[in-house]
Amino acid sequence: LLNLSSFLNQDNPLLSTIKIVLVETTHPGNIGAVARAMKNMKMHDLYLVSPKIFPSADATSRASGADDILAQATVCASLQEAIADCQLVIGASARGRTISWPELTPRECAEKVLISEHGNKVAIVFGRENSGLKNHELDLCHFLLRIPCNSEYSSLNIAAAVQVVCYELFVASGLPAQENVVIGDKGKDPLATTMQMESFYTHMAEALYDIGFMHPAKSKSIMRRLRRIYNRVQMDSKELDILRGILRMAQGHKRNSDV
Amino acid sequence: LLNLSSFLNQDNPLLSTIKIVLVETTHPGNIGAVARAMKNMKMHDLYLVSPKIFPSADATSRASGADDILAQATVCASLQEAIADCQLVIGASARGRTISWPELTPRECAEKVLISEHGNKVAIVFGRENSGLKNHELDLCHFLLRIPCNSEYSSLNIAAAVQVVCYELFVASGLPAQENVVIGDKGKDPLATTMQMESFYTHMAEALYDIGFMHPAKSKSIMRRLRRIYNRVQMDSKELDILRGILRMAQGHKRNSDV
Repeated sequence: LLNLSSFLNQDNPLLSTIKIVLVETTHPGNIGAVARAMKNMKMHDLYLVSPKIFPSADATSRASGADDILAQATVCASLQEAIADCQLVIGASARGRTISWPELTPRECAEKVLISEHGNKVAIVFGRENSGLKNHELDLCHFLLRIPCNSEYSSLNIAAAVQVVCYELFVASGLPAQENVVIGDKGKDPLATTMQMESFYTHMAEALYDIGFMHPAKSKSIMRRLRRIYNRVQMDSKELDILRGILRMAQGHKRNSDV
Repeated sequence: LLNLSSFLNQDNPLLSTIKIVLVETTHPGNIGAVARAMKNMKMHDLYLVSPKIFPSADATSRASGADDILAQATVCASLQEAIADCQLVIGASARGRTISWPELTPRECAEKVLISEHGNKVAIVFGRENSGLKNHELDLCHFLLRIPCNSEYSSLNIAAAVQVVCYELFVASGLPAQENVVIGDKGKDPLATTMQMESFYTHMAEALYDIGFMHPAKSKSIMRRLRRIYNRVQMDSKELDILRGILRMAQGHKRNSDV
């Protein structure tokens, strides 16, 4: 028998074919922040090529609950080793290169990885904080990944860059966002029907007349403006009840003052 | 002659209408990382509501060259003050809320801000690292912004969240401009600012008290529901005038009936 609920809760299998590879990261805090950014987007496969300091309390602290990603991370001596089993290697780059490379934006990268390269093992490679990837490392890449940004200030923090790329991958993976989360009572109260709204407008016109706001001569244009406001808001039936309660109270005072 | 290259290099002026507002940020390093994320995406207008520690060497260090954003940042005592001149306020939220709010993804948010809300002053608000925005702060927001992510690990670092949102804004700012869709006479009168709306809510609370609708014990939840209705509708200033006229008339009758 097909267990549908476990199927729905499963990670998109394509996301787990994607490795994030960090080359010679200097600050262990950045490694932790990368782990957090990955886990936020349901990715888990982290490779570290010759990290300066790892493991580290700084990494664990910045991982902020994504320490499972750090614990499972694979440390390698070379980029070649990290990407040995990959069919598609994409290298992140902030700066222009003297030699041309085919370039992808994060969105194009996500589409390529999750749609056109379905089934291939993919690595996305991020270089050193200060100097990025070296040319001999880019030689191992099929594509360059460039995040659109301010040309006069183009160096993103490495974890911020990983966050943007993993976010695009997650969006493209087609997983319904927050599929298990039911947001409050959203949709619990049905939207007001046209009939309820018409009854509300009739009540409102009476109340506005009762409190002395509406002169018959100008009532048509005023009611038209009020209809525009309240039609736009798409009230649910409970909200409508509150507003009708207010109208009744306003009328009640008028009646009392007439007595 | 049209100078196409200078046109293409121009800043999109809409990006500079957008404020990033951080509420009670605990870690100054995060403020610096936010400044960097903003500058990477050509945004510069940072507001800090009661930051725990600011200015700070940690903030400057993590800003990594975006210290001009920190130097220009505006520190405020309240969220109301930070968004007083804004017509559209969008609050970032990671967790489900007990009451429903209209929600946007970062991409929808970017489209809304840069295409459909052209000309309005916009604030995007990010809450505390541990607890996000409080309900009374969300009451000031027209929309919730939710970043699609792992439902089992949904809390992004605040600077990572700002990076994703500013990235989507930057990408959308480079899209070819679209014609504004004008429905009826909407957009003819400027949208009400937060300050005008707050003054309207104060007036409404008084009027509801005057007509005997509001009991002090339940006024908080009623006012929250009413805020949700009227924030959703995004009224222009003329519509607001009509509603305030109605409130004045309702109050006047109450005063007459007291005499």
